[in-house]
Amino acid sequence: MSASPIGIFDSGFGGLTVMKAIRSLLPYENIIYFGDTARLPYGTKSGETIIRYSEENAAFLLQQGIKVLVVACHTACSFALEKLQQKFDLPILGVTASSIEPVVLRSPRGKISILGTRGTIASGAYQNAIQSLLPSAEISPIACQMLVHLVEEGFIDHPITEMTIQEYLEPLKNKDIDTLVLGCTHFPLLYHQIQKAVSPHVQVIDPAQFCAEALQKLLKEQGLLNSEKTDPYHQFYVSDDPEKFRLMGKNFLGRSLPEVKHIDAVSSSSMIENQSK
Amino acid sequence: MSASPIGIFDSGFGGLTVMKAIRSLLPYENIIYFGDTARLPYGTKSGETIIRYSEENAAFLLQQGIKVLVVACHTACSFALEKLQQKFDLPILGVTASSIEPVVLRSPRGKISILGTRGTIASGAYQNAIQSLLPSAEISPIACQMLVHLVEEGFIDHPITEMTIQEYLEPLKNKDIDTLVLGCTHFPLLYHQIQKAVSPHVQVIDPAQFCAEALQKLLKEQGLLNSEKTDPYHQFYVSDDPEKFRLMGKNFLGRSLPEVKHIDAVSSSSMIENQSK
Repeated sequence: MSASPIGIFDSGFGGLTVMKAIRSLLPYENIIYFGDTARLPYGTKSGETIIRYSEENAAFLLQQGIKVLVVACHTACSFALEKLQQKFDLPILGVTASSIEPVVLRSPRGKISILGTRGTIASGAYQNAIQSLLPSAEISPIACQMLVHLVEEGFIDHPITEMTIQEYLEPLKNKDIDTLVLGCTHFPLLYHQIQKAVSPHVQVIDPAQFCAEALQKLLKEQGLLNSEKTDPYHQFYVSDDPEKFRLMGKNFLGRSLPEVKHIDAVSSSSMIENQSK
Repeated sequence: MSASPIGIFDSGFGGLTVMKAIRSLLPYENIIYFGDTARLPYGTKSGETIIRYSEENAAFLLQQGIKVLVVACHTACSFALEKLQQKFDLPILGVTASSIEPVVLRSPRGKISILGTRGTIASGAYQNAIQSLLPSAEISPIACQMLVHLVEEGFIDHPITEMTIQEYLEPLKNKDIDTLVLGCTHFPLLYHQIQKAVSPHVQVIDPAQFCAEALQKLLKEQGLLNSEKTDPYHQFYVSDDPEKFRLMGKNFLGRSLPEVKHIDAVSSSSMIENQSK
């Protein structure tokens, strides 16, 4: 049993969709969320840079005394999850990895499309993980980078976004897919628009729920659930403007955010040595 | 007379449109360009963060022995130009400031629209600078953040971009503007699309040329022109993937880029103290 907080990081806002699923399933857990808003987006940047940023973010959260780390960004998972697991001495879950088995189990014919950032798709991490569990899978990966920017700019219910989704999904026309994975934590905000753009028989999957379930299982197994059934604290940190995060974050978390604190991303980098194994 | 290089920085690619104008007007000048690609975009981030990034970028370039610094990013100009001029002991030019007088002189009736990033427009810097030179000016500022992302994702000649431009420029319909300023260094890549979206009588102005002219004037006045009429060197540094910059940069610079070198943006931050006044 542990009242220590769960640590979650993302490049910025998207990870709040994962936090939403976690707080719904684990309502008594304390949570510390870090959004690296001064350096977002991650999806267009190199693996080398994403690994460095992810290590810095993890080090900052470890310094806050977290009991488990959730990487709530598919791009960071794709490039940095294994490095983090090697470097830091605590349980680390990634939103990508926790969705692989559920996606494979839910796909009736293994015809799966994955939508992700440029980095996630280019890394091949999602595709390889599915293929290794289901070698017969027919995977159609699509990099939909512009959807991240459209969500961040508030173009949610907008003809430009609808047109962009249609263009990105055009290659799926003759693929007869049965399952489509929202492999970027921004995309759940476009769930209905994406579902509308494919056949109604295609199941559109948001991996956040599976991440929350995997986290619950891990906490149970390791005896790390919080036994205190009182109101938990949820603390938010960002590397850029806290007020902007508080205002925009509401759309991602599905509820108002309390106070958000600013930390300097550069100074957090100096913490790495103290926090690593 | 000085063979020392001109230093130019931008958040990433856009500043190459300014470098293009500079190298065309000053073909014998050595140039060192830094694109902060690991932390782009700047246009969506807070003034505080942009000032910190700009100081780090300037410090890195000063360490390379530059004779003059050009801030080739309107967002960085809007928030950080004065701070840089106070902090560092060399001539510093900004692409925004060098365009104010030429824009006012060219506008027949002072009805001017400025397109910029979210940060540039929110800062009010461009608007205030024009208004202080021409108090009767009627200024229509428009934040067009999505155009930055569309250019970076290669959606140049694309119906989605055309539609986005039309939507952003909708408020100009009844303004009878005579001049439109491309107040973000990405927007010259959409010059024709933007001109097409307004009346043919509206002059669309790219400030890069004025920045190059102001730089030429400054170098002449201060005796800093390079007297060697030989092939200059142009050195490019970025904080993220150099090869991606070399490939994408071609569209902005209008010619192939030579080797691009990587520097770590975080480690450059430690240089500030050594380089400041």
